[in-house]
Amino acid sequence: MLILMEQGATDAQVRAVMDLLEGAGIKAIVQASPAATSILAPHASQALKADRIEPMDGVSRVVPITSPYKLASSDAAPGRTIVDVRGVKVGGKALALIAGPCGVESREQLFTVARYVAESGARLLRAGAFKPRTSPYAFQGMGVEALELLDEARREFDLGIVTEATEVETFDEVERVADLIQIGARNMQNFALLRRAGRSGKPVLLKRGTAATLEEWLYAAEYVLSEGNRNVILCERGIRTWSAHARNTLDVSVIPAAKALTHLPVIADPSHATGRRDLVVPCARAAVAAGADGILVETHCQPSCALSDGPQALLPLDFIQMVGQVTAIRELLVRETPGETYCF
Amino acid sequence: MLILMEQGATDAQVRAVMDLLEGAGIKAIVQASPAATSILAPHASQALKADRIEPMDGVSRVVPITSPYKLASSDAAPGRTIVDVRGVKVGGKALALIAGPCGVESREQLFTVARYVAESGARLLRAGAFKPRTSPYAFQGMGVEALELLDEARREFDLGIVTEATEVETFDEVERVADLIQIGARNMQNFALLRRAGRSGKPVLLKRGTAATLEEWLYAAEYVLSEGNRNVILCERGIRTWSAHARNTLDVSVIPAAKALTHLPVIADPSHATGRRDLVVPCARAAVAAGADGILVETHCQPSCALSDGPQALLPLDFIQMVGQVTAIRELLVRETPGETYCF
Amino acid sequence: MLILMEQGATDAQVRAVMDLLEGAGIKAIVQASPAATSILAPHASQALKADRIEPMDGVSRVVPITSPYKLASSDAAPGRTIVDVRGVKVGGKALALIAGPCGVESREQLFTVARYVAESGARLLRAGAFKPRTSPYAFQGMGVEALELLDEARREFDLGIVTEATEVETFDEVERVADLIQIGARNMQNFALLRRAGRSGKPVLLKRGTAATLEEWLYAAEYVLSEGNRNVILCERGIRTWSAHARNTLDVSVIPAAKALTHLPVIADPSHATGRRDLVVPCARAAVAAGADGILVETHCQPSCALSDGPQALLPLDFIQMVGQVTAIRELLVRETPGETYCF
Amino acid sequence: MLILMEQGATDAQVRAVMDLLEGAGIKAIVQASPAATSILAPHASQALKADRIEPMDGVSRVVPITSPYKLASSDAAPGRTIVDVRGVKVGGKALALIAGPCGVESREQLFTVARYVAESGARLLRAGAFKPRTSPYAFQGMGVEALELLDEARREFDLGIVTEATEVETFDEVERVADLIQIGARNMQNFALLRRAGRSGKPVLLKRGTAATLEEWLYAAEYVLSEGNRNVILCERGIRTWSAHARNTLDVSVIPAAKALTHLPVIADPSHATGRRDLVVPCARAAVAAGADGILVETHCQPSCALSDGPQALLPLDFIQMVGQVTAIRELLVRETPGETYCF
Repeated sequence: MLILMEQGATDAQVRAVMDLLEGAGIKAIVQASPAATSILAPHASQALKADRIEPMDGVSRVVPITSPYKLASSDAAPGRTIVDVRGVKVGGKALALIAGPCGVESREQLFTVARYVAESGARLLRAGAFKPRTSPYAFQGMGVEALELLDEARREFDLGIVTEATEVETFDEVERVADLIQIGARNMQNFALLRRAGRSGKPVLLKRGTAATLEEWLYAAEYVLSEGNRNVILCERGIRTWSAHARNTLDVSVIPAAKALTHLPVIADPSHATGRRDLVVPCARAAVAAGADGILVETHCQPSCALSDGPQALLPLDFIQMVGQVTAIRELLVRETPGETYCF
Repeated sequence: MLILMEQGATDAQVRAVMDLLEGAGIKAIVQASPAATSILAPHASQALKADRIEPMDGVSRVVPITSPYKLASSDAAPGRTIVDVRGVKVGGKALALIAGPCGVESREQLFTVARYVAESGARLLRAGAFKPRTSPYAFQGMGVEALELLDEARREFDLGIVTEATEVETFDEVERVADLIQIGARNMQNFALLRRAGRSGKPVLLKRGTAATLEEWLYAAEYVLSEGNRNVILCERGIRTWSAHARNTLDVSVIPAAKALTHLPVIADPSHATGRRDLVVPCARAAVAAGADGILVETHCQPSCALSDGPQALLPLDFIQMVGQVTAIRELLVRETPGETYCF
Repeated sequence: MLILMEQGATDAQVRAVMDLLEGAGIKAIVQASPAATSILAPHASQALKADRIEPMDGVSRVVPITSPYKLASSDAAPGRTIVDVRGVKVGGKALALIAGPCGVESREQLFTVARYVAESGARLLRAGAFKPRTSPYAFQGMGVEALELLDEARREFDLGIVTEATEVETFDEVERVADLIQIGARNMQNFALLRRAGRSGKPVLLKRGTAATLEEWLYAAEYVLSEGNRNVILCERGIRTWSAHARNTLDVSVIPAAKALTHLPVIADPSHATGRRDLVVPCARAAVAAGADGILVETHCQPSCALSDGPQALLPLDFIQMVGQVTAIRELLVRETPGETYCF
Repeated sequence: MLILMEQGATDAQVRAVMDLLEGAGIKAIVQASPAATSILAPHASQALKADRIEPMDGVSRVVPITSPYKLASSDAAPGRTIVDVRGVKVGGKALALIAGPCGVESREQLFTVARYVAESGARLLRAGAFKPRTSPYAFQGMGVEALELLDEARREFDLGIVTEATEVETFDEVERVADLIQIGARNMQNFALLRRAGRSGKPVLLKRGTAATLEEWLYAAEYVLSEGNRNVILCERGIRTWSAHARNTLDVSVIPAAKALTHLPVIADPSHATGRRDLVVPCARAAVAAGADGILVETHCQPSCALSDGPQALLPLDFIQMVGQVTAIRELLVRETPGETYCF
C-alpha cells in the first residue's frame, strides 16, 4: 500500500505510522516530495488492513497496490518520478536528450561528437565502453580505456555520461564513471546484473528486451527497485517482429501504455529501433509525440566508417534538425500541473 | 520508365514520344501536373533504351523504374501524389481527418457522430455498412440501409463518405455512395476485389494487412493501380505481433519507409492499431509526427454500447482534443516546396 | 446442443426429438453414423433446456456446445469427422497424401508429376489452375485450360483432384473439376468466398491464414459449415514470424491444439511452411508425428524451372522416401478404437 | 579451414602441418576421431592458402570455413559431434532423454520423480537449483541445498544431472554437481556467462533465446566453443510469436535447419515450447521426427502443486508413454553410416 500523508503532516505523525508498520513486521520507506510526504509499504496489504491506518492523524489516504510489480506500479508513487541525471531531470517538463556514438572508438571520434552534442543543447553523452556483440569475433569495445575518455569528455564538455554495464564483473568500473548506467536489451533479464544495478547509487537506464512484454519489462525494473535503487528510466528500443523494412519495430504504443502502469520515466531509442538512418528522425518525433520523456540516439560524424552500427547513426546536421523538431513537439504537448508533476 | 518533359514542352513533343513508345508496342500514360508533364511507361525498359528517348525534343530526363511495383514506385511519379476526396486533398499540406463510428447502427447514432465530426473541422466521415467479421454469427453491418443513411449524412453535414467494400458482389452499391472506398486489412490480398477497385472511378483507401510486409502492401496497391485507378491512399492500421498490451502493434516506422518507396499518400488508423481508447490519441500524434498524411479514427458518442469495436472508439471530447494536437504537429512539420509538393 | 441417441434408437424416437425442437423454432440436423445417430441443434441452448430432452425415449445424452464456433466445435459431433475425397478418407486411420506441382504449367509437366504421385501410392493430386500471386505481374495460372488438364489427369491416373478457388467469379468452374476445393491462406477471411464454398457439394480444404490464430481459423471453418457444407479439412501451412531460416514457421503444436477443439480433420503443408526443399521432409514427418491426418506437398520433376515456388518442391525420389517415412510414423501412432473413430 | 588427414596419417605428418600453421602464427587444434584425424584452424584462410597445405604428406583435403561462426560450423568438424554426458552419447544413434521437475522442491519430490525417470529408461535427470524468474518475488529455487539433493539423486538412481547455471557468481557450485550445465533461454546472450561456460570442463546445454534467430544461436554457441569447451548441445525450446494457443511456438523446422549448419547435436524441449501438458507429447514426437537428437521434458508426480511451471509438466504415465513413442520414431529414422556418424 501507499500511504499519502496530508500536506502539513508532522514528522511525529509520519513516525507514528512507521512505528505501526514496523511493529507489524512490515518493511516501509518514507518518500519525501515537495508536495507531500508518502509512505510506501509494498507488501503490507496482507498483514495490515487500510482501515487501521486511514484514521491516523496526518494520514490523507491509503492506496492499495494491486499490480504484482509493487514498486514500479503507478500506485506506488504519489506522482510521476523524475530521475535526476547530473542535473538533467528525466521525466520532467523538458525532454531529455541523450546522444553519442555507438561505441567509443578514439579520443578524436568521441570528442568531435561530444562537441556538437553539447552545442545542440543536449546535456547527456552516450557511448559504449563495453559492447555486447552477437559474435565473439566482433569489436567488443575499448573497455577501461574508453571509460577514461568518457570521464575526460564529461569535464571538457560538461556532459553527463551514459554508458552500458554488460556484466557484474566490470560493473564497478562502469559505475565509477557513468552518470546513468545503461542495462542493454540483451540483459533485460540478466537478474544478477539487475540486482547489482539495484545496489548502485547511480540511476539506471533499463532497455526493453527485444522480445519482452510490457509486464516483463516492469518486472525487470522491479528487480532494480527492490534492491533499493529508486532511479530507473525505461527505454523502448524496438521489438523483434516479422516486419522487414526496419531492423526492429518501434512499439510506439508501449510508451503511453507503460506510463499508465508505472510512475517511472519512459524514453525511446529510435536508432536501434530502426537500424536505418532515414527512419531515425521520424521515429524520434513519433516517440515524443506519443509521450516519451526523452530520446536516446546514435550520432556519428562519419557513420560509414564506424566500427559498429554505422548505418543507423545520424549525421550531425540531421541530429541538430531532430533536436529542434522533438523539442517543439514536446513543448506543444507538455503542461505543468500543480504538485510538480507534468503530463499531457 | 518515367519520362519527365521540360516545363514548356508542347503537345506535339509529348505526342512524338508517345508515338515512339506506341510504335514499339509499349503501353504508356501521359500524366499532367501543374509543374510539368510526364509520361509513364511502366514496362518499357526491356523493349526500349532510355538513350533513344532522352535526346528527343522537350524531354528533360528519363528515370528508370527499378522496383517491381512499377506504378506504386516513387520513380513512377514526378512528385508526391495528392488524392482528392470530395475536395479534401489527401497527401497535401493539410492533414486529412477521417472519423466516425465503426459501423452504422442507426440514423440517430450516425447523425450524432457526424455532427460533432463536422464541427471538429474534419471533412470525411467513415462508417461501415458492410462489416467483415471474424465470426459468422457477429453483427455484419446494416448493408444497403446503412448506405442510404450515409448518403443522407453527406448532404446533411457536407461530409465526404468513407466506407468499406467487402466483396465484389456488393461493390457497385458501395461505389455509388462512397467518396473513398475502403479495402480492409483482411482483404488486402483479395485480388478480385483489388482489381474491381482498380476499375472504379472513386479513390481507394488500402489498409495494410495485419501480417503484410511493406513490399506486399505496395504490390496490393499495384493491383489497383494497374487496372487504371491512380487514386490510392495507403493506411497503416497495426500489425500482429506478440506484444500484448495492445490489440495490434502500430508499425509507425512503416510510414516514412513507405513514403520513401511510393508516391502515394500514407495515413494511419490508431483505433484498430491499438484497440484501447487510452492509446488512440498518443498513437495518432505519433503517426502524424512520423509523417502520416492523415488519420482515420473511430469515434462514438456512447462507446460502451456500440455493436462492434466499442472499447477503441474515442469519446467526442477526446476526439476534438486529438484534432487540435495532430493539426498542430502537422503544421510544425510541413513545409511548402516549389512545384506543389510538400515534405518534411 | 448435441443430442446423442441410444444405439438402437428408432426413427420415431428421432422424429419425436426433432418435432420438439422444430416446435420451439429451433433449427436442427440429424447426423447418422454407423455407431449411433445424433441430432445437432447448434443454437438451441437459450431456447430449450437440456432437461426437457434428456428424459425422452431413445435419447442417450445431451451435450452443450460452449464454444462460439458451434459447428466446428468438438462438442458438435459424436466423434472425429472423416471427410471422403473421391474415396480417400481424410481423418481416418490412413494418412491422406496430397501431392503435385504448385501450378499446372503444361500437359507434359502435369502428367509426369501425376504419374509418379500415383505410383507412390498417393491418391490425390494437387495443382493450381488459378494462382493468387503477390504481384499483379507474376504468373497467375493457366486458368480454365489447366482445369481441363486436371480433369484429364484424374481419368488417366485415377487420382482425386485438389485445386484452389481464388474468387467467387470463377468458383463454378473450379467446383466442376475439383474433388477437394482449396481455400488458400490469403483467402482465409474472404468471407464471400467462404460462404460460396459452404454452398458447394464438394469438400473444402481450408488453409490457415499466415497470421491467423487458431480461433480465427475455426471461425473461418464455421463460415463454411454454417452454409451447410459439413466436409471441411483444416490445413496448417506455416505462420509468419521473425524466425528467418525458413519462409514461414510451421506451427506444429497447432495440430494437436486444433484436434482438441474441433472434430474436423487437420492436415499440414510443409512446402509452404518452409519454402526450403531440405526442410520439407523433416517437417512432413514432424506434422504427422504431431497427429496430422494428412500431408499436402509440392513435388515437381524439375523444380529449378518451375514457374512458381520451385525452391520448395520435392524431387521425385525425395517425395517417395517421404511417403515411406510418414506412412510408417502414422502406423506407429494410430490405433483403431470402437465406434469407428481413430486417435492416438 | 579444416584439414582432413588421410586415414593412416602418421603423427609426424600431423606435426608437420601444425608446424607450418604455427610458423605462420595461426592457432590450430588437432581433432582425433576413430575415423580420421583432422586439424581445425578456424581463422587461417586469410593468412595461408589451402594450396600450400593440400599437397603435404598425409593430408587428404582442406575444407574452407565460410560461415562466420567458425567453430560451430558444419565445416569445422569431419562429422557430427557426439557429446558424452556421463556415458549418454548425445548426437549418436540413440535418442537422449532428459527429464525431471522444473525445480527441486524437496528431497521427496525429487526422489519420487527421479525414480520413475530412471525406471522409464531415461538416464539424465533435469531439475533447477537456481531458477531465473520473471518476478523478483517468485520462487527462485532452493540453491545450494538443491545441488546437494541432486548430487545424492545421481548416486541413488545412477542418473546424470542436468541443471541450470544462471550467473557467473554461482557457476562454480553448479559446475561441481552438474554433468551437463544448462544455459537458459534468457541467458543465451549473457556473454559473460557463456564465456565462463566455455572455460568449464563440463558439457553445456545451450537453449535458444525466445527471440533468437538461428544465426544468433550459433554465435552464442561460438562464444562457448571459442573459449575451449567443445561439448555444446543446442536446445530448441519454442519462440515468441503472436500464435496464442500455446505459450510459445515450437519452431520445429529449426532442428533440421540447425543440423545443416552445425556439427553440434540439437535437442528439443517441448515443455517450455508449449506450456500445455496436452501438447507436450505430440510436440516431443514432432521434434524427434524432425531429427532432434534428444528430448528435454518436465515431469512431475503432482503437477497441480508444483511451485513453478506446473501446468506443463507431464504426469508419470504420460511421460512413460512418450518415451515409448519417441524411441520408436527415432529407431524408424536413424541409420548407422560408416565413420561413426549417424543420420537420416
